[in-house]
Amino acid sequence: KVAPVDTNLFPAGFNNLNPAFLPLCVQAMQAKIEQLCETASNILLIPEDHTRNLFYMESLATLRDVILKAGYQVRIGSLRADLKASEQIALPSGRYVKIEPVIRRDNRVGVADYDACLVLLNNDLISGVPEVLRDIEQDVVPPPGLGWSSRLKSGHFRQYNNVASEFAALLKIDPWLINPQFRNCGELDFKKREGEDCLVRNVEALLASVQQKYDEYGIDKPPFVVIKADAGTYGMGIISVSSVDEVQSLNRKQRTKMASMKGGTSVSKVILQEGVYTFETWGEQEAVAEPVVYMIDHFVVGGFYRVHTERGINENLNAPGMQFEPLAFVEPCNLPDRTREPDAEPNRFYAYGVIGRLALLAAARELAEHNNGK
Amino acid sequence: KVAPVDTNLFPAGFNNLNPAFLPLCVQAMQAKIEQLCETASNILLIPEDHTRNLFYMESLATLRDVILKAGYQVRIGSLRADLKASEQIALPSGRYVKIEPVIRRDNRVGVADYDACLVLLNNDLISGVPEVLRDIEQDVVPPPGLGWSSRLKSGHFRQYNNVASEFAALLKIDPWLINPQFRNCGELDFKKREGEDCLVRNVEALLASVQQKYDEYGIDKPPFVVIKADAGTYGMGIISVSSVDEVQSLNRKQRTKMASMKGGTSVSKVILQEGVYTFETWGEQEAVAEPVVYMIDHFVVGGFYRVHTERGINENLNAPGMQFEPLAFVEPCNLPDRTREPDAEPNRFYAYGVIGRLALLAAARELAEHNNGK
Repeated sequence: KVAPVDTNLFPAGFNNLNPAFLPLCVQAMQAKIEQLCETASNILLIPEDHTRNLFYMESLATLRDVILKAGYQVRIGSLRADLKASEQIALPSGRYVKIEPVIRRDNRVGVADYDACLVLLNNDLISGVPEVLRDIEQDVVPPPGLGWSSRLKSGHFRQYNNVASEFAALLKIDPWLINPQFRNCGELDFKKREGEDCLVRNVEALLASVQQKYDEYGIDKPPFVVIKADAGTYGMGIISVSSVDEVQSLNRKQRTKMASMKGGTSVSKVILQEGVYTFETWGEQEAVAEPVVYMIDHFVVGGFYRVHTERGINENLNAPGMQFEPLAFVEPCNLPDRTREPDAEPNRFYAYGVIGRLALLAAARELAEHNNGK
Repeated sequence: KVAPVDTNLFPAGFNNLNPAFLPLCVQAMQAKIEQLCETASNILLIPEDHTRNLFYMESLATLRDVILKAGYQVRIGSLRADLKASEQIALPSGRYVKIEPVIRRDNRVGVADYDACLVLLNNDLISGVPEVLRDIEQDVVPPPGLGWSSRLKSGHFRQYNNVASEFAALLKIDPWLINPQFRNCGELDFKKREGEDCLVRNVEALLASVQQKYDEYGIDKPPFVVIKADAGTYGMGIISVSSVDEVQSLNRKQRTKMASMKGGTSVSKVILQEGVYTFETWGEQEAVAEPVVYMIDHFVVGGFYRVHTERGINENLNAPGMQFEPLAFVEPCNLPDRTREPDAEPNRFYAYGVIGRLALLAAARELAEHNNGK
C-alpha cells in the first residue's frame, strides 16, 4: 500500500531536496511562471510569519533561489504585523534572506518600490486570508482559498478518495491500495470530553473496516487509526490508536495536546485516518523512513525521506518535537524503467511521484469546489 | 566571443548528454507534449533514413526513451522506401530499436495499427517534404518547413543577426560579441569554378570586417572565414580560409569536396561565416573542445563538448570523418550563480544556454517567415 497521509500546499523543506535535482525545480518554476507572467518578471514571495525558524528560512532561501535561477526577480514580502522595515537574516548555510513588509497600493501588493506580476504564497494562512491579500488584481498561487483557514483535510481526502477510485479503475487495482480510509467527526471539545461518542464510534468503524482489508490481504498486523486536526498544520497533536479503549483512556496530557491543535481553542474538528505502516527503513539501525514528495506546478521535482530512529512504523513521523533527519531521494521521480521490477529504485520513486500527482489532482478539485462555493 | 555557428533542428547526439540530466529532458518533453496532445498519448517518431548508423540509432533510442519516460506511447515510423516490414535493431548499449514503415491513412500518418496524436520529426528532410507527410492533420514538430530542403543557414543567421542586435541592445553590449558575421553568394559551381569572383569578393570583405573588430578588441590572431554549404548538413565540405589567396588556390580535392556538399550536384549555395576561435580545451593534451547545446522545446536540457585532439582552434570540429569525443557537460545549463564570475563553471554553461535560446528564437522567426511566405 502506498498512500498519501497529508497534502501540504504551502510546504517548507525545499532545502531538504537533493541539490542534483535543483535544475528540475528551476525548469518547472520557469514553465509555470511564464504561463502566468507573459511579459513581466517580478515575483513577490510571501512566507510564513515564523521567520525566526532557521529551518524554515533555509527552505525559503532555496525557494527564492529557484525563482532567481529561473530568470525572474523576486522579493520577499512578509505579513508579520511587527515588521516595520526590511530585515536581513543570516542563515546557517551562509546565505542571507531579506524580508520586507508587504505593501498594498490600490488593488496591488508589493514591497517598497516593487510591484509584482505574481504572488507566490508560502504561508498556509492558518488565521484566515489577511486584509492585505483580499481582492487584489494579481494572481496568487497556490490560491489563498486553500489556506488552512478554509481547508479541511477531510475535504482533501474526500476528493482524493474519488481520484483514487477513478485511477484504480483505469489500472484495475483495488483503490484501497493507494487510498487511506478516513472518517471525520464534527466539532469535538477534548477538554470537556464533548463529542467523544462520535470519536469512539468512528474509530471503531474505521478499525473494523481496515481489519477487513487486512484479512483480505493476509496482513498480520493490528490496524491503527491516526487522529489529527482536520484543519491542522505542523503535525501538532497527532495521536495513533489501535483500539477504542485507547481513545477512552487518552490521558490528560494527550487531551490537552489535542485541544491545543488549533490556535489555543479547545474545540477542534478532527479527522480519523487509517494508519499506514511504514515499511521503508534506512541504515543498519533500520530507522523508519517516510517519503515526502515535492512538486512545483504539476511537475514532481524530487523528495526526501523523514528518517527517525526512535519512532515505530505505526507512528506519525511529523510530530511535535520531532527531530527527523531529512534524507534526499537519490533518484529523480520521473525516470521509470519498464524493464525493471515495480519496486526497483527508479520505479519506487516514480510510484511516489504518481501518488503525489493524484493528491495534487485532488487538491485541484478541492479548489474547484471552493471556487464554485463562493 | 560566444557565438552559434550552426542550429540543427533535427539533431542526433541525444545519447551524448549527461545521464544525470535525463530528468530535465523528460520533464521538458512532458511540458511540450501535453500542450500539443491534451488527451491523446500516441507519438510517432520519424527518424533519419540512415538507420545503419549505430551512433544515430543510439541517439534515436535515447529520444524514444525520453518520450516513454515522459508517460507517452511512442513508435518509430521510417520514411525509408526500402523498408517493407518492421525491423528490430540491436544497439551497442544493449538497447533495441524497432523501426516500422510509416503508413498514411487518409490525412493521418502512423504505423501498423497505430494512429499518432503528434509527429515528432527527427529527419532533416534534405530531399524535400515527402508525399506521405504532406497535408496531414496531425501536428508535426519541428515543422517540415524548416527541413534543409527549404531552409538556408544564411536565412537562419539573418534572423539571428536581428535577435543578437536586439538582445545586445538590452544588455548594452557590442552585438558582435555574440554574433558571427556572415555573407553569402548565389549559386557557385566549384568544379567549373563559376561564381568564384563572388566568393573571393565576399571572403575579402568578411576578413576585413573581422580584422577591424580584432583591432578594436586587440585580438592578435589572424581572422578566418569558414565556407560551408548554405543548405548543408553533416558538416560535409567545410573549409577554413584566412586569405583570399587560399580561396583561389583551393586544390582539386577541396573543390571536389565542396562540390559534393549537396546530393552530388556540383552546384551549391554557400555561406561564408566569420570563424570563431575555440578557446576551450580539455585535458592535458589541451584538446580543442567545442560546446554543443541541446534544447527540448524552449528548455535548455544539457549539452556536450566535441573534443578533438588533432584539430586546431580555427578548424570546424564537425567535419567529415571527424572522430570527436563527446564529453557531456558536467553542470546543467540552468543554474546561474550571481555570486560568481561570469565564466565560473555554472555561469559558463548558463551562457551557452542563453546563446542556444537566442538561436532558437531566430529559428522561430525563420519559421514565421516561412509560414508567411506560403
